[in-house]
Amino acid sequence: MKLVTAVIKPYQLDAVKEALQTLGVAGMTVSEVQGYGRQKGHTEVYRGAEYTVEFLPKIRIEVVTDELEVEKVVDNIVAAARTGKIGDGKVWVTEVSEVVRVRTGERGIDAL
Amino acid sequence: MKLVTAVIKPYQLDAVKEALQTLGVAGMTVSEVQGYGRQKGHTEVYRGAEYTVEFLPKIRIEVVTDELEVEKVVDNIVAAARTGKIGDGKVWVTEVSEVVRVRTGERGIDAL
Amino acid sequence: MKLVTAVIKPYQLDAVKEALQTLGVAGMTVSEVQGYGRQKGHTEVYRGAEYTVEFLPKIRIEVVTDELEVEKVVDNIVAAARTGKIGDGKVWVTEVSEVVRVRTGERGIDAL
Ligand SMILES: Nc1ncnc2c1ncn2[C@@H]1O[C@H](COP(=O)(O)OP(=O)(O)OP(=O)(O)O)[C@@H](O)[C@H]1O
Ligand SMILES: Nc1ncnc2c1ncn2[C@@H]1O[C@H](COP(=O)(O)OP(=O)(O)OP(=O)(O)O)[C@@H](O)[C@H]1O
Ligand SMILES: Nc1ncnc2c1ncn2[C@@H]1O[C@H](COP(=O)(O)OP(=O)(O)OP(=O)(O)O)[C@@H](O)[C@H]1O
Ligand SMILES: [Mg+2]
Ligand SMILES: [Mg+2]
Ligand SMILES: [Mg+2]
Repeated sequence: MKLVTAVIKPYQLDAVKEALQTLGVAGMTVSEVQGYGRQKGHTEVYRGAEYTVEFLPKIRIEVVTDELEVEKVVDNIVAAARTGKIGDGKVWVTEVSEVVRVRTGERGIDAL
Repeated sequence: MKLVTAVIKPYQLDAVKEALQTLGVAGMTVSEVQGYGRQKGHTEVYRGAEYTVEFLPKIRIEVVTDELEVEKVVDNIVAAARTGKIGDGKVWVTEVSEVVRVRTGERGIDAL
Repeated sequence: MKLVTAVIKPYQLDAVKEALQTLGVAGMTVSEVQGYGRQKGHTEVYRGAEYTVEFLPKIRIEVVTDELEVEKVVDNIVAAARTGKIGDGKVWVTEVSEVVRVRTGERGIDAL
């Protein structure tokens, strides 16, 4: 099994959620984070003054998924999160050695 | 070493924390997340109107632990988090290749 | 590629961010967490009364990085986060099998 982590623009969360539901992804975990990527902080004008925004609000999405589904999950997140502007996000994949559904104690693929 | 990640119901945090302390787990990291599992959003009545709750508040717990302890850590989290109702949570395990205690610079098992 | 996760004292975030920028790290994700380590909760006096602080506010930093850079990233985080007092933090490293830059679809090292 695999864990797909995506850090995306907050406004793209609904699109990503719908893409994952259409794909039949059974669960996901979402949290609020702050991030910067290659543009780092950008300069913004707010009430006439210039501010350097160092961190920008982003949303992190985590999906534990079957190895066989992982490419589809990544591709669908990337397609749904993309606006074409800098800061669209980053997706990474790590290996998961065990999963358990707490209510039933099921393990492995059955727990997804 | 292993990283155990658990997404549980907020009300079960105290039970899980106590179970881990009883086990002698030396540290944990907790954060607020939103999630959905297989029931996805459920319909809720609030002040007479019906709302579809898409994401439910959950707590994520992370524990870095010795390979030899990981099964006990998982089993104790699952037992303490379980209420028997849907949405009780999900636990997953990933491999950790290095750990450092910042204060001392200790690495590996000694850093736990 | 590797994912470096660090849980540090909130006041050390600026120092860690600067150390990583100096190193040329292109991106990072930051979130607010609560944690305890080996000292567990400590007793604190607040407005004349004693409280047991169970969880302390910490900052989690995540950096996806090239395998060749990971030791430097870890060492620089540890050096910048250290104050010498208990609770300075924990850093751990996990394996990343894939990374994608959402805007361009680039994968692997090119996506960092
Ligand atoms: N190397 C990284 N490690 C951890 N998180 C990262 C990394 N790079 C980016 N992120 C997270 O992803 C968010 C979005 O990154 P971003 O899309 O700006 O990446 P980028 O490589 O700079 O691409 P772009 O050129 O399109 O801006 C960042 O705000 C940060 O939270
Ligand atoms: N595949 C998944 N990937 C990431 N997070 C998940 C996944 N499945 C569940 N979660 C997280 O765990 C929380 C609890 O999941 P939940 O207990 O509802 O799982 P479930 O498989 O639907 O089991 P149940 O049938 O008992 O409801 C979710 O709200 C979500 O935050
Ligand atoms: N085993 C662990 N698993 C997950 N998170 C941990 C673990 N140990 C510590 N942490 C996180 O790191 C934070 C800082 O830990 P801390 O520096 O207190 O570690 P420690 O081993 O107790 O070292 P010290 O003796 O210097 O206090 C904790 O508040 C917690 O959020
Ligand atoms: Mg960027
Ligand atoms: Mg469910
Ligand atoms: Mg400690």
